[in-house]
Amino acid sequence: MTKGRLEAFSDGVIAIIITITVLLIDLPEGNGWGDLLSILPIVASYFTSFLLVGTNWVNHHHLLQVARTVDGKILWANLLYLFILSFFPVTTGWVGRSGFALVPVQVYIFVNLLGAISYYLLEKAVMQSKGNTALKDLIDEPRKERWTIMVEIISFGITFVPGGHHLSCPLLIVAVAPWIVPDLRIKEGLEKNHDRNN
Amino acid sequence: MTKGRLEAFSDGVIAIIITITVLLIDLPEGNGWGDLLSILPIVASYFTSFLLVGTNWVNHHHLLQVARTVDGKILWANLLYLFILSFFPVTTGWVGRSGFALVPVQVYIFVNLLGAISYYLLEKAVMQSKGNTALKDLIDEPRKERWTIMVEIISFGITFVPGGHHLSCPLLIVAVAPWIVPDLRIKEGLEKNHDRNN
Amino acid sequence: MTKGRLEAFSDGVIAIIITITVLLIDLPEGNGWGDLLSILPIVASYFTSFLLVGTNWVNHHHLLQVARTVDGKILWANLLYLFILSFFPVTTGWVGRSGFALVPVQVYIFVNLLGAISYYLLEKAVMQSKGNTALKDLIDEPRKERWTIMVEIISFGITFVPGGHHLSCPLLIVAVAPWIVPDLRIKEGLEKNHDRNN
Amino acid sequence: MTKGRLEAFSDGVIAIIITITVLLIDLPEGNGWGDLLSILPIVASYFTSFLLVGTNWVNHHHLLQVARTVDGKILWANLLYLFILSFFPVTTGWVGRSGFALVPVQVYIFVNLLGAISYYLLEKAVMQSKGNTALKDLIDEPRKERWTIMVEIISFGITFVPGGHHLSCPLLIVAVAPWIVPDLRIKEGLEKNHDRNN
Repeated sequence: MTKGRLEAFSDGVIAIIITITVLLIDLPEGNGWGDLLSILPIVASYFTSFLLVGTNWVNHHHLLQVARTVDGKILWANLLYLFILSFFPVTTGWVGRSGFALVPVQVYIFVNLLGAISYYLLEKAVMQSKGNTALKDLIDEPRKERWTIMVEIISFGITFVPGGHHLSCPLLIVAVAPWIVPDLRIKEGLEKNHDRNN
Repeated sequence: MTKGRLEAFSDGVIAIIITITVLLIDLPEGNGWGDLLSILPIVASYFTSFLLVGTNWVNHHHLLQVARTVDGKILWANLLYLFILSFFPVTTGWVGRSGFALVPVQVYIFVNLLGAISYYLLEKAVMQSKGNTALKDLIDEPRKERWTIMVEIISFGITFVPGGHHLSCPLLIVAVAPWIVPDLRIKEGLEKNHDRNN
Repeated sequence: MTKGRLEAFSDGVIAIIITITVLLIDLPEGNGWGDLLSILPIVASYFTSFLLVGTNWVNHHHLLQVARTVDGKILWANLLYLFILSFFPVTTGWVGRSGFALVPVQVYIFVNLLGAISYYLLEKAVMQSKGNTALKDLIDEPRKERWTIMVEIISFGITFVPGGHHLSCPLLIVAVAPWIVPDLRIKEGLEKNHDRNN
Repeated sequence: MTKGRLEAFSDGVIAIIITITVLLIDLPEGNGWGDLLSILPIVASYFTSFLLVGTNWVNHHHLLQVARTVDGKILWANLLYLFILSFFPVTTGWVGRSGFALVPVQVYIFVNLLGAISYYLLEKAVMQSKGNTALKDLIDEPRKERWTIMVEIISFGITFVPGGHHLSCPLLIVAVAPWIVPDLRIKEGLEKNHDRNN
C-alpha cells in the first residue's frame, strides 16, 4: 500500500519533470526553417535530458520493485532524489539556450552527478531497511553505480580542459549506457526467486 | 505490476502533454471580442492536437491492455513514443501562433508522422515479446497503422503544392479517423478469449 | 481495469488543470502590500475556478464509481468533457487579469455552460452503456444537472443587462451549490445495493 | 476504492505543485557563474518549499492510510488543503525573486500557517467520520500540530520586529522538524492493530 503510493507519487513527479522540460523550448520567432534551426540546441539538450531522466525512471522502477517495505529513511532518500531530478528542466533550458556554453554545461553535469549520488543513497536506504535483504543478494557489487559516477566525474573534469566541454554531454550518455539495458541483475534475481517459490 | 506502473507513467505523461498544451494559448491582450478572435487559430490547433493526442491515448490504452509482459524493449519503445508525443505542445503552439503557416504546418505533420511510426514500433515490440502472442492473432494485418502513416505522408506531400498546406491539418483528422472507433479487433479478440476461458 | 485507467487518466488531467491554473497568477511586480493587492482579482478568479473544477472532480468521481463497463462512447464523451475543462486555466487567467470585465466574464460562463452540458452527455453515455443500468435507477431525474444548466444560462443572460456581469460569477457558485454536497442519490443507492448483496 | 482515488488525486496535485514550482526559477540571463549566483535566492526558496511540501505529502500519506471511509466532509477538507498548498509556487517565486523581502516573507509564512490549519481541519474530518475511530486512539493529543502552528505564528510575529524576517524562513523548518520523522504515533498504532489481528 505505502509502496504503491510512493511509486505513484515518484512516477507522477518524474513524469512531470520529463514533460515540463519541453515548456522551456521557446517557440521559434518566425515561420521559416531558419527559425527552427535556432531552437535546435535546446532540442538537443531536451533529447539528452529525456534520455537521462527516462533512464532514471526505468532504474527507479526496478529498484522499488524489489523493495518490500518502505520506511521513513526511504521516503526521505526518495524525496532528495526527486529534488535533484527536479532541476533538470532549469539546467536543460539553460544549457540549450546558451548553445552548450562552458558554465551551463558544468552545472548540467554537476546536477547529473548529484542525481547519481542520490540514487546510490536511495539504493542503500532500500537495502538497509528490514525485509529488503533480497536486494542485497541481487546487487552484491554496485558496479554500474560506480561506472556512472566515475564517468560523470570525468565528464565534469574535462570541462576544465580548453574545448573539453564539447565532449561532456556525449560522455553523459556513455555514463548511463549500461543502464539502458534494464538492470538484469535485479531481473534475473527476481526470476530465480520466483522459480524457487513455485 | 510492472505493466501497471508503465501504464500509470504513460498515462501521466500523456495527461500532462495534453493539458500543458493549453498553456501555449496566450491570454487575449484586451478585453473585447476582437481580442478573443485573435487567439482562434491557436485554439483551432489546440483542438486538433487534443483530438490527435486523445486518439493516441485511447490506442495506447488498448494496446497495453493486451500486453501480458513488459520487457526492456517495450519500455524503451514506449519512452521513444512518449518523447515524440512530447513535442505536441511546442508544434501546436508554433502552428497556431503562425496562423497555420507553411513551415510550422510541415513540422507539425512531421511530428505526427514520427508519432505514428513510433507507435507502430511499440506495437511490434509488444507483439514480439514472450507471452504476448495473443496480440499477434488479434492484429494480423496492421491495416489502420498503414492507413494513418499513408494519409500522413500524403498530408505532408501536398504541403509542397502551392496552397496545399491549408488542406493538411484537416487531412490529419482523416488519418486518425479509423482509430476514433477504438480498436475493435482487439476488443473482439479479448471478448473471444474471455468466452473461451469461461 | 479499463475503468481504473480511465479514472486515473481523468484524475491526472483534472489535477493538472486545477493546479496549472495557479501558474497564470503573475508574480507581484514589487515587494509591497500594494503589489499584492493588484493580483487579488486573479486570486479571486482562481478561487472560483478551483471550487468549480473541484466540484466537477467530485461529481466525476461519483459518476464513474457507478459505471461498471467503459465503452468507446464513454471514452470519447469523457475526452470531450476533459477538453472543455482544459479551458479553465485560460479563461480564469483572462477573467482575472481583466478585473472581471464584461467579455471575459461572458466567455468564462460560456465555458462553464459547455462543461455542464458535456458532463450531462457523459452521464447519458454511462447510463446507456450495457451493464450500467444501476445508474438509471439511481438518477431517475437529472434535477441537479438541470438546475446547474439553468442557473448558468441565467448567469450568462444577465451579462447583457448593464452592470449585470458583476453578479454572474457569484451566480456560478449558486449554480454548483447543490453539488457541493456529493451526489447523495448515488451514495444512497450504492449503500442500498450493498445491503441487498450482503 | 473511493479512498484510492482520493489518494491518487491528492498525490497528483501535490506532485504537480512540488514540480511546477521549479518553473518559477528564471533561467540565468548570461552564461557565467555570476548569472548563476543571481538565481540563488529563488533556489533557496525552492529548496525550502520542496522540504515543506514534501513534509506535507508524507503526513498526508500517513493520515489517509489510517482513514477507512471517505465522506463528503473529508473530500472538501482535502480540497481546501490542496487549494492552500497550490499557492506555494506563487509565494515561493515571489519570496525568491524579492530576495526574501519583508512582505513576501510575511505572505509566504501566512500561506504556511493556513496550510497547517487546513491540515488540522482535515485530520479532524478524518477522525470524526464513521469507521475512523482508530485514528482517535492513535492521535489522542495533536501535539505536533500545535507545535507547528505555534512556531509558525512566532515566525510570522517576529517579521514585525526590524530585521526579524531574516529568521522567519529558517524558523519554518524548525516548525516542521518534528514531522520529518514520519508520524510514529500512527505507525506504531498501525503495527499494534496489526499484531492484535494476527
